[in-house]
Amino acid sequence: MSDRYSEYRQVAHDLNVDALALVPGSNFTRLFDASFHSHERPLLILIPVAGPPAALVPNLELRSFDLLDFEGEVFDWRDQDGYEAAFAALAQAMPLKTLAVEGQIMRVFVHHALKNAYPDIEIRDAERAISLLRMVKSPRDIEKMLGAIEISERALARVLPQVRVGQTEKQVEQMLVQALFGEGAEDMAFGPIVAAGDNSARPHAHARHEVQIQPGDALLFDFGARHSGFCADITRTVFVGEPSGEARDVYDTVLSANLRGLEITKAGVTAHEIDDTVTGVLEQSPFADRIRTKTGHGLGRDVHEAPYIMRGNHQPLPAGTVFTNEPGLYKIGAFGVRIEDDVLVTETGYRTLTSFPKELTVVGQ
Amino acid sequence: MSDRYSEYRQVAHDLNVDALALVPGSNFTRLFDASFHSHERPLLILIPVAGPPAALVPNLELRSFDLLDFEGEVFDWRDQDGYEAAFAALAQAMPLKTLAVEGQIMRVFVHHALKNAYPDIEIRDAERAISLLRMVKSPRDIEKMLGAIEISERALARVLPQVRVGQTEKQVEQMLVQALFGEGAEDMAFGPIVAAGDNSARPHAHARHEVQIQPGDALLFDFGARHSGFCADITRTVFVGEPSGEARDVYDTVLSANLRGLEITKAGVTAHEIDDTVTGVLEQSPFADRIRTKTGHGLGRDVHEAPYIMRGNHQPLPAGTVFTNEPGLYKIGAFGVRIEDDVLVTETGYRTLTSFPKELTVVGQ
Repeated sequence: MSDRYSEYRQVAHDLNVDALALVPGSNFTRLFDASFHSHERPLLILIPVAGPPAALVPNLELRSFDLLDFEGEVFDWRDQDGYEAAFAALAQAMPLKTLAVEGQIMRVFVHHALKNAYPDIEIRDAERAISLLRMVKSPRDIEKMLGAIEISERALARVLPQVRVGQTEKQVEQMLVQALFGEGAEDMAFGPIVAAGDNSARPHAHARHEVQIQPGDALLFDFGARHSGFCADITRTVFVGEPSGEARDVYDTVLSANLRGLEITKAGVTAHEIDDTVTGVLEQSPFADRIRTKTGHGLGRDVHEAPYIMRGNHQPLPAGTVFTNEPGLYKIGAFGVRIEDDVLVTETGYRTLTSFPKELTVVGQ
Repeated sequence: MSDRYSEYRQVAHDLNVDALALVPGSNFTRLFDASFHSHERPLLILIPVAGPPAALVPNLELRSFDLLDFEGEVFDWRDQDGYEAAFAALAQAMPLKTLAVEGQIMRVFVHHALKNAYPDIEIRDAERAISLLRMVKSPRDIEKMLGAIEISERALARVLPQVRVGQTEKQVEQMLVQALFGEGAEDMAFGPIVAAGDNSARPHAHARHEVQIQPGDALLFDFGARHSGFCADITRTVFVGEPSGEARDVYDTVLSANLRGLEITKAGVTAHEIDDTVTGVLEQSPFADRIRTKTGHGLGRDVHEAPYIMRGNHQPLPAGTVFTNEPGLYKIGAFGVRIEDDVLVTETGYRTLTSFPKELTVVGQ
């Protein structure tokens, strides 16, 4: 049967399970070009290896769900009744012994409801196999992602000239967020990181209300807009006033690692090879003890998705893959530098979707 | 033992489980006043009924985790090694037979990792019991929530005078989002709903790019800022040009229901009684067939949390509870009206934290 579920049916077949479940999230949105709120009300669809799919939908979402032109039976439930009976009816209509689920998206209460309705079912985490379907981006996906990236870069270009010694990280973050939405972001791809000085040495720092930027501080921006369903993810580290010689050396090292990673990118290279090359540059520098992260991750509808660019992942990257190349060096208690591009793998090499300058930049003067 | 885990230990004790697990989310943030990204890397803490807690933390989050002054043993893991060994070490250090988890937050891959490390463990969904700890808000919580609400109301006040016939829902949404961040939002509490005409009859509508606002359209705004960790959630429905007589009648009915809900609010009233009263007003109107939702939900660090304001929930609401009072009537294919306030329960009655006018408002003229 060739229909819009074909590739999902194939995944279920390859995993040797009876069906595959999707819950609201990026795989669901890719399939239906629609998204649903996913709070306390379970919503899921079951795609069997063959035959019509089925859905379990909160009653108050039915009118939105109708827009999907869903082909299978729909089991709805109302808040006042709870969802147990709908799960039971679903189980009766579509008996299953094995089910593949999105382990990083589906939550435990849905898992439990499935187990109650299907007492003998084996539920397998197939996050990787399901999400791999999103790894190769279409030209249209790339256009959308470029839209998100351009918004992000215009926002950063707006903010940098306004940065001054004495501002707090929170103040700069607020400027960035306003600039992102002012430039047309539909949402932020993730909570932005704006971190100065010692905070920039935390890979996932939070902007502080109480700490003012000091002269010479590294100032790290890691952020991205969401636009047309796709994410940008860009990091630039600038200096607020003249950096130290050590900071310049660190910056040059990180930039070299980033550039080496680009140079070897081409369809067929493995995630391992990229991380090994990029991290190798850092390891051969005097700053090897400041390495704290892998090189990067896939980027698309989710800000973190396959492929993970790390040693041991011997997955060859096909043309159309988009990943982040984001080496960093982090001196605990002092400062960190990270430079992150969004990179499209092509048959002949690569295209950096991010184009914000990477030369060492001094602001606030 | 009285420490910052006491009330969580008590929940575990009351549930008759060995320990309680928290993953990044609102309960975690409430406990530690810190938040963590929660993508593909599991992070969790285990709080036993007695004795020190333990944590499993991605290595690259260790420096952020250090800021928590965590009292127990920390098992970290690196991307290149995977997290299985860290789970195994955790299981060895803290043997458990039963564990309570946050079923609406914890994802299946973490559940599976726990099951692998603790093959005989019984994992119970204790979302409700754990999250009930957040139901009563402190005066400081209320101050923060008021901050989020004031930002939201100033944003709406900015947008309404700019609305015109012929704009698309997306254009109005974009104005709203810019206004929210311009007024100081740190984030949006949820993807805002800006829905005109027939789309306003979908309780969880998405703004459309292609549909222009028509004269007389209902225009429904359901949105909120996030500020200092707390959410606002407010809905107002206005009309772009003169509404029909039917629309006026519907508006008056919904407003009456909202006001009746406020009148009976007071510490000790049950969620059932509020929904029964509010929905009762709608049921006794000529528009009873347009009811599609319960009256509301708790509001705090999460935009949807306990208590759920619905028939059958005989939970008495203590002073300090904040809930949404959001009756609506939805005529499929035509228009919907919803009016939503954020309501604080007090010993003597209530305080509406939202103060945006609720009189029928005509804009765009």
